[in-house]
Amino acid sequence: MMQQPAIALGIRLRLLAEGPDVSAAQVVVDHEVGDYTDLDALHRITAGVGVVTFDHEHVPPTHLRALQESGIACRPGPQALIYAQDKGDMREKLAELSLPAPAFTVVDPAQHGEESAREALVAFGDQIGWPFIVKTTRGGYDGKGVWKVTSADDLDEPFAAVTASGARLLAEALVDFRRELSAQVARRPSGEMVVYPVVESRQRDGICVEVTAPAPDLDPATAAEATAVATSVAEGLDVVGMLAVELFETQDGRVLVNEFAMRPHNTGHWSIDGAETSQFENHLRAVLDLPLGSPAPRQPWAVMVNILGGSVTDLVAQRAVALAAEPDVHIHLYGKEVKPGRKVGHVTATGDDLDDVLRRARRSAAILTDGEETA
Amino acid sequence: MMQQPAIALGIRLRLLAEGPDVSAAQVVVDHEVGDYTDLDALHRITAGVGVVTFDHEHVPPTHLRALQESGIACRPGPQALIYAQDKGDMREKLAELSLPAPAFTVVDPAQHGEESAREALVAFGDQIGWPFIVKTTRGGYDGKGVWKVTSADDLDEPFAAVTASGARLLAEALVDFRRELSAQVARRPSGEMVVYPVVESRQRDGICVEVTAPAPDLDPATAAEATAVATSVAEGLDVVGMLAVELFETQDGRVLVNEFAMRPHNTGHWSIDGAETSQFENHLRAVLDLPLGSPAPRQPWAVMVNILGGSVTDLVAQRAVALAAEPDVHIHLYGKEVKPGRKVGHVTATGDDLDDVLRRARRSAAILTDGEETA
Repeated sequence: MMQQPAIALGIRLRLLAEGPDVSAAQVVVDHEVGDYTDLDALHRITAGVGVVTFDHEHVPPTHLRALQESGIACRPGPQALIYAQDKGDMREKLAELSLPAPAFTVVDPAQHGEESAREALVAFGDQIGWPFIVKTTRGGYDGKGVWKVTSADDLDEPFAAVTASGARLLAEALVDFRRELSAQVARRPSGEMVVYPVVESRQRDGICVEVTAPAPDLDPATAAEATAVATSVAEGLDVVGMLAVELFETQDGRVLVNEFAMRPHNTGHWSIDGAETSQFENHLRAVLDLPLGSPAPRQPWAVMVNILGGSVTDLVAQRAVALAAEPDVHIHLYGKEVKPGRKVGHVTATGDDLDDVLRRARRSAAILTDGEETA
Repeated sequence: MMQQPAIALGIRLRLLAEGPDVSAAQVVVDHEVGDYTDLDALHRITAGVGVVTFDHEHVPPTHLRALQESGIACRPGPQALIYAQDKGDMREKLAELSLPAPAFTVVDPAQHGEESAREALVAFGDQIGWPFIVKTTRGGYDGKGVWKVTSADDLDEPFAAVTASGARLLAEALVDFRRELSAQVARRPSGEMVVYPVVESRQRDGICVEVTAPAPDLDPATAAEATAVATSVAEGLDVVGMLAVELFETQDGRVLVNEFAMRPHNTGHWSIDGAETSQFENHLRAVLDLPLGSPAPRQPWAVMVNILGGSVTDLVAQRAVALAAEPDVHIHLYGKEVKPGRKVGHVTATGDDLDDVLRRARRSAAILTDGEETA
């Protein structure tokens, strides 16, 4: 999705693709297939480029530092990306910055032994209350690597998961939240920032299914607090590019940081069709140190619904049905093979009546997911 | 510019490019360099594709018929494209459809001899009045192949131009027009159409420099007439895809057809940032027989200004200056080498105050053309 604004702005992307058929390789002419953990491949693909950026956070920081030493600007840089790679480091950094977050503790079974780590987690539960949340500090996403533990027995599975990898475990208090919010900013190397409206995201089984921009009925003070947290994270970690901070809105109107991502993020996909400047364009503008564009909404409401792999396997054929039902819902297909629950596309509707916008976006997505016309 | 909506809709384009560095070849992965007058190249590139479409009208109709006979859908088809290829045929077809157009005559020096053709043109001038306009029926564009003749002596140059090519000459009455308008429609094979707002285009030396959408202060009856002409052309010629009909608005509020194009057209570039569905997306949807999207404007006004090659030769470097001055003007660079007067990009501003929208678009384009900050 970065390629569309890159075409308009005359930015020539060069891509290191994980495979010959991945989405980005289908649309970026100048690409090479390779492994992002292979430093030689990284040196080869970055030869002669001005700036390197990412659509995930998993490139090893040692490799990023090696690229920096060879004169390549990495944006965001490794000093920021390490906090997106490791949820334990992220929690500790947020605490250092005094940003609002759930109570947490980090244990390292590989270093201190599983028995001591278990004892620490049980003590954490006894102190802040059971049940609580346990996550692997690395590698989890879309609900994977996350457990709700109600007793010491529930810890077996998380420990089993990290025994092989040597990763740490993060324990967090279970937050009694009203809903989830996301605050996005784009930030240039100089520190210039633009702030997108705070959105509401709805999850199912830990996977984002739907986003409404802006978050309906959000108290202006809560919106300001969410935005302040996002700008503090961007400044505190010296993030360059897009930053998405996912937040819990508590029953009493506070916000607590859940996670963040230093790249265009699913909770910002609405901006392609709904904002004056999309998150993908502002990511490119930020990492190239170009003046940023307005993040203002084009319409009062935008609703983005993910297309998660369902019974429809031929999305290209089903596209005609979805467009016939809702010709003005913007369809985005990622060129991926459909697998159950996999994010294979999204749709966005915009307008001035939220109920109508929600109805249209959900109907289009339902047609593309299970062929149903659930209006 | 078709590639951006193709990416979103999951449409895999395959491109026959005129050269390895042309704009489209920079952004379409699956491309081959070849000559569109080479039938073998056309057969090779179209093997296995469902639909062929075009970004110009110059593919020989015999080749298009050969592709059709091999089972490839050509949209628009040769029965329509011939009228976009030959201005003489176009004028005769418009007359057959009783559509409003300037008085005209077509002469064929290759067939009837130059002397007889000259006599016919002089008689035309004596009848409808001097000066009048002479055009080559084929191959002219952006003001090339067009002459204003004030006396018989002025005919030397047009005749010299067609002696080699064997083309015909079209003579048209000089229209005392108030301004130029453009009416665009998208049409599916089934006949379904959507109609874009009628726009005003401003030309300099026969080249479009600026478009305002919708045309300011346009009488609703004139707008309806312009739209009716465009839909009549689309139906009368069985056009599939985008059709742009360029019209003169006369001093007394009538419209006369100047020219038309059966593809996304410069006078519709505003729609990328200014309409709910761009002309490029609706062209793709039309030729693939998908339901069409709304052509409604996103904002009350959109102004598109072409970037014509000027003293700025490094557009990529100058992009930062233009974005700093006008961060919310949408820049589109075509990846072309800058040559004097060549269309190398465009900018579009949108908003609810026309003066402000005009000022911002012109300022951004001036910075990208000559580096001037002419506010």
